[in-house]
Amino acid sequence: MRAAPGEFEIIRDFFAGAKKLTEGVVLGIGDDCALLKAPADGLLATSVDTLVADRHFPADADPAAIAARSLRVNLSDLAAMNARPLWFTLALTLPESDMQWLRGFSRGLLETAEQFGISLVGGDTTRGPLTITVQVTGCSKLPLRRQGAAAGDAIYVSGPLGAAAAALPVVLGQKLAGDSERKAAERAYYFPEPQLATAAAIGPLASSALDISDGLLADLGHICEASRVSADIDLHAIPVAPVARQLAGESALELAASGGDDYQLCFTVPPPRIPELEKLGLDVVCIGTIIEGAGEVRAWLDGERWFPESAGYQHF
Amino acid sequence: MRAAPGEFEIIRDFFAGAKKLTEGVVLGIGDDCALLKAPADGLLATSVDTLVADRHFPADADPAAIAARSLRVNLSDLAAMNARPLWFTLALTLPESDMQWLRGFSRGLLETAEQFGISLVGGDTTRGPLTITVQVTGCSKLPLRRQGAAAGDAIYVSGPLGAAAAALPVVLGQKLAGDSERKAAERAYYFPEPQLATAAAIGPLASSALDISDGLLADLGHICEASRVSADIDLHAIPVAPVARQLAGESALELAASGGDDYQLCFTVPPPRIPELEKLGLDVVCIGTIIEGAGEVRAWLDGERWFPESAGYQHF
Repeated sequence: MRAAPGEFEIIRDFFAGAKKLTEGVVLGIGDDCALLKAPADGLLATSVDTLVADRHFPADADPAAIAARSLRVNLSDLAAMNARPLWFTLALTLPESDMQWLRGFSRGLLETAEQFGISLVGGDTTRGPLTITVQVTGCSKLPLRRQGAAAGDAIYVSGPLGAAAAALPVVLGQKLAGDSERKAAERAYYFPEPQLATAAAIGPLASSALDISDGLLADLGHICEASRVSADIDLHAIPVAPVARQLAGESALELAASGGDDYQLCFTVPPPRIPELEKLGLDVVCIGTIIEGAGEVRAWLDGERWFPESAGYQHF
Repeated sequence: MRAAPGEFEIIRDFFAGAKKLTEGVVLGIGDDCALLKAPADGLLATSVDTLVADRHFPADADPAAIAARSLRVNLSDLAAMNARPLWFTLALTLPESDMQWLRGFSRGLLETAEQFGISLVGGDTTRGPLTITVQVTGCSKLPLRRQGAAAGDAIYVSGPLGAAAAALPVVLGQKLAGDSERKAAERAYYFPEPQLATAAAIGPLASSALDISDGLLADLGHICEASRVSADIDLHAIPVAPVARQLAGESALELAASGGDDYQLCFTVPPPRIPELEKLGLDVVCIGTIIEGAGEVRAWLDGERWFPESAGYQHF
């Protein structure tokens, strides 16, 4: 972290307006390190994600939307662990010093940070191909992990799926869409909703959890592997996002089952805790059951095994 | 942070051999977040740095050396704040899945992490132009900052300067060199020594500190700006690295004054504490004095003002 005159100072200057630093931030941007006081109780939870231009977003996309997505996908990792947001850093690699792009990006980042009560405490800027790495840190008194699911547990998702996967071809310009469809697609793809409130509510009840970034079937597979169990899910039970139906028609269910980037939670709840969960009145949906097994996720459609055409997002 | 089968699992597998997790690491790689217990006393210090291929290193450089430098420059930021290393994350963007490159890179990272007692706790891998972002976190009971220098304080550097700047043209292949010179250059550039022990020793005595990443004059300027003072330095007093003289000849002093990437510390000590500093027997060198002023760094050579040809490393 360096304080040489550079573009990071511009971003910092935009952020100078945001005086409200969250708890624990003793020293923010401008020295060799940020200095932070961890909350006395609970564990720190930290996660890092990189977005690469023309892989995760078109290079010419609205910089405020890119910034929003960069932070939101990381906040979703905090939700997955039932951690409340504290602070984050930004490592920004930019092909050139483009003031207008930086203004849009820093505005998007600031608005998102304020909305979720998280402070930018440091970063680095370098020149190179457009790449954005955000690292968030939160605090969890009751961390949810991928391991912990047991045979008999009910499997839930926190909300509708398929929206982001249906949106992607529109966002990437591979599929034409009308103005209102394009806006809905951009909303779904760039502004996923980190499920922080749902995580806090289910924290005391769930036996395992993660966020659905790679696709429901793939991510539920991670719970099964970590917990050394298998899963049966009922395809008809999966809540399909209306925008997925609108954009993808008959493929919407496939996208809800195996498309990524929705950032809803998938979690498991032991049967004795289900009445408590139901009393909370959350918009969560039960989609199946954990069974004994060796990490297999079995999807069923009208009594028949169903296999997705794609096995989830591959990073390489 | 995702656990989809990908290259990060390969790196993790290489790291599985390193069982010794440093204190506070409750959960490392493999879930949505790492879970960490901050030390009860002291502040967390965190810093992030990005290295971009063909900007900070040649894309075809030894991956173990690239990894070493990525972590060492970040550890230097911890030294600058007098923080001891705890844990770090790696965000790695790679053009393709190259097992041999990954083996070398993870070996270099592992060896460096073990040497400095810091644990890899998480990361992200994406496909794209080769870019490496490392974020380190440490703990400091007595943080050193850039602000705090006062008129009359003595200015010190922790060791010889100019080596990395003299090495750079050789490392980049812009300047031919014999085998032993090339090895010395690569050593200087890829393996800077984070001054953690010196930082711990001077922590109770110094009024301000930073690490010299952008060049002595530029970085001392950051101390002066943050502390609202100016500085006089004697060019003859600056310790010039032997390898800088060997590689750059008469330009060595210029490089020691204004070349970057050496990662020695620059720090200030109030006169009443100087006897204590001298008793420590460190290889630190006094190069000048803090004076009243508005952030100016004045270098003197034989009684004349001296100006560098370059004003320090520019990030954009």
